[in-house]
Amino acid sequence: MSMVVPRGFRLAGVSCGIKQEASREDLTLIVSDAPGVAVGVYTQNAVYAAPVAIDRQRTPSSRIRAVVANSGNANACTGERGMRDALQMAAWAAAGCQAEPEQALVMSTGIIGQFLPMERIERGIRTAFGRLGNDSEAFLAAARGILTTDKGPKTDTRTLALNGQPVHLAGMAKGAGMIGPRMATMLAVVLTDAPLTENDAQTVLVEAVESSFHCISVDGHTSTNDTVLLWASGAAGGPPLSGPELAAFQDALTEQCIALARQIPDDGEGASHRITIDIHGARSRADAQRVARAVADSPLVKTAIAGGDPNWGRIVSAVGYSGAEFEPDALGLRLNGVCLYAAGEPADFDAAAVSRSLRENRETHLQIELAAGDVPLRFWTSDLTVAYVRFNSEYHT
Amino acid sequence: MSMVVPRGFRLAGVSCGIKQEASREDLTLIVSDAPGVAVGVYTQNAVYAAPVAIDRQRTPSSRIRAVVANSGNANACTGERGMRDALQMAAWAAAGCQAEPEQALVMSTGIIGQFLPMERIERGIRTAFGRLGNDSEAFLAAARGILTTDKGPKTDTRTLALNGQPVHLAGMAKGAGMIGPRMATMLAVVLTDAPLTENDAQTVLVEAVESSFHCISVDGHTSTNDTVLLWASGAAGGPPLSGPELAAFQDALTEQCIALARQIPDDGEGASHRITIDIHGARSRADAQRVARAVADSPLVKTAIAGGDPNWGRIVSAVGYSGAEFEPDALGLRLNGVCLYAAGEPADFDAAAVSRSLRENRETHLQIELAAGDVPLRFWTSDLTVAYVRFNSEYHT
Repeated sequence: MSMVVPRGFRLAGVSCGIKQEASREDLTLIVSDAPGVAVGVYTQNAVYAAPVAIDRQRTPSSRIRAVVANSGNANACTGERGMRDALQMAAWAAAGCQAEPEQALVMSTGIIGQFLPMERIERGIRTAFGRLGNDSEAFLAAARGILTTDKGPKTDTRTLALNGQPVHLAGMAKGAGMIGPRMATMLAVVLTDAPLTENDAQTVLVEAVESSFHCISVDGHTSTNDTVLLWASGAAGGPPLSGPELAAFQDALTEQCIALARQIPDDGEGASHRITIDIHGARSRADAQRVARAVADSPLVKTAIAGGDPNWGRIVSAVGYSGAEFEPDALGLRLNGVCLYAAGEPADFDAAAVSRSLRENRETHLQIELAAGDVPLRFWTSDLTVAYVRFNSEYHT
Repeated sequence: MSMVVPRGFRLAGVSCGIKQEASREDLTLIVSDAPGVAVGVYTQNAVYAAPVAIDRQRTPSSRIRAVVANSGNANACTGERGMRDALQMAAWAAAGCQAEPEQALVMSTGIIGQFLPMERIERGIRTAFGRLGNDSEAFLAAARGILTTDKGPKTDTRTLALNGQPVHLAGMAKGAGMIGPRMATMLAVVLTDAPLTENDAQTVLVEAVESSFHCISVDGHTSTNDTVLLWASGAAGGPPLSGPELAAFQDALTEQCIALARQIPDDGEGASHRITIDIHGARSRADAQRVARAVADSPLVKTAIAGGDPNWGRIVSAVGYSGAEFEPDALGLRLNGVCLYAAGEPADFDAAAVSRSLRENRETHLQIELAAGDVPLRFWTSDLTVAYVRFNSEYHT
């Protein structure tokens, strides 16, 4: 797989001994040749990790030179020492490119409540500076450096022509558990060589997150470390994007964020189905989110799909307790294209055939018609299997 | 086990062929010798079953003569035919005691979306009228008649002296899955011979439910059929309770509802731990509920407890995303009496000892200190095990 890394960036992913498996990368470093525009969207969890506190304060910025991230340790719930460690980690990354400390951002993911192994982090950053590259291999190593329980890296790259110049977007994300839908979720970084102002960068990122990282759930559990960064080097040249070019960039960014976000529930811990939930006819976007989230987070819905059971009663009752406004008499439901429930009453359908379609396809499609307005929403989740419970019962602190 | 049935009531539980196992009771009939005061608290699910619609309309009432309930079929999402069936079922019960149709209430629990087998119901009601009794045996048979996936009947009886007279309360409940905390949950009936006005009965029931059936969760999934009824025959004699007698009755009723409600997560599908969550120092009761529910419904918290892991990070992060107002720096957490987290930072504790206490005890105690106010709340839930997922993946519609 060949990927184009946006101009102006170099990356590395190295193993420095935070994770137990020595072969797995656990530290990612990204540097830009010149100061770039960086913006972020962060967890809404009231308990947030030290790196989130730092990045939240430092963005938006037009002076960012480095992002350093580690996996295997979230540096969350670690108090003042955790904050000092995160500041130090960022400072090492900044120093490596002769920048001021506040020109670096920092991200962490992994176990909560343990202090970072600072000697290993320092050594890892030093090693990473020696391995920076701007090819596919460097990009993939960096994408692996942020993974925890993920089965593999989650990436997306795309190119578009704006103002006669090719503009590149390269995104990476991580996440498989502790995935709740209330905000940008888990770690993701999108690099671009497009020229963007701070304000526009923030606006397009918020918009893209709204229909991507905000629309996924594995277990409804919102993490302490969720961070999505957009970092623009401007190396494509020209003045900041505006008008139709900015709109085209927005579209590409949104598509990239959706492509990355979808990979998260697809890799949901123990998942045997990837479930796409389409809400139609909601009164508001908030109502559509409520319905999607109630259905996505119901263990009864999740286990029914895992078991290949077209149990529409569990889905309809989850819609009912979501808190969204709708007329029960108008409610409709389709599963893998088959109508199970229409105008508030059960439909005649071939249960054996729908069950077979669930058992034979990892991809599952739920369509919920609320008939209460005209707002649609697409949401992604995973099912709940014995493997999820095993994994999370056996994963010990 | 000997139980005193409040005076003025007779009960029966019979098997009429709704459930597949012929040996299991699936129809419960309770009649009162004279019209009694009945009040109810019902599901807040927008999609509610036909029997809920009927009872909601008929209560409060001071004329109730019969309650008929079936298990094995929820008569939910069954449209107009379901409503006709529920009305017919109530009418048969009323006719059996020469009462008007609207003097009977009706409850159903079981599979969603199938029509009631009305011939069997009719035969069952007829059989039940022939077996009515007011002893322990009749009471237990009636308590068994409302069960679905429960391992056994959930009952509580108590006696208190009011105005120099003994007053009895006898309650039964059912529920093991599709248990969400947003309201009175699943089916419960409390019979009493106390004299109560309609208004007072409604007030004391709402108050009792608030700290009992409203404070439990198995899977966060609010059912379409949740109903809690309080039915007072007045057969203890005297004028309606008031002042200190009414307060004493309230206390006994609340204790009975708590005793019944606790049995539900204790019997949660596949549960290996019964978890009591004590919230301290919330700003409001709503905030305390938010925190308890976020923790109780987090699959990550539930699987950690199932696995004997004192994973306070999962608990603290769930508190963080609950939406309650509190200062993260003041947050504290105890698990089975051991302090894991204090004033926003991890405490030193013997993780092996806490893990052992989780593995060796079914009873699990979480204490969460929010330090944001002075409102306490007690909440009960169960853990999430492989057995829950197996059961709910293999239970087919």
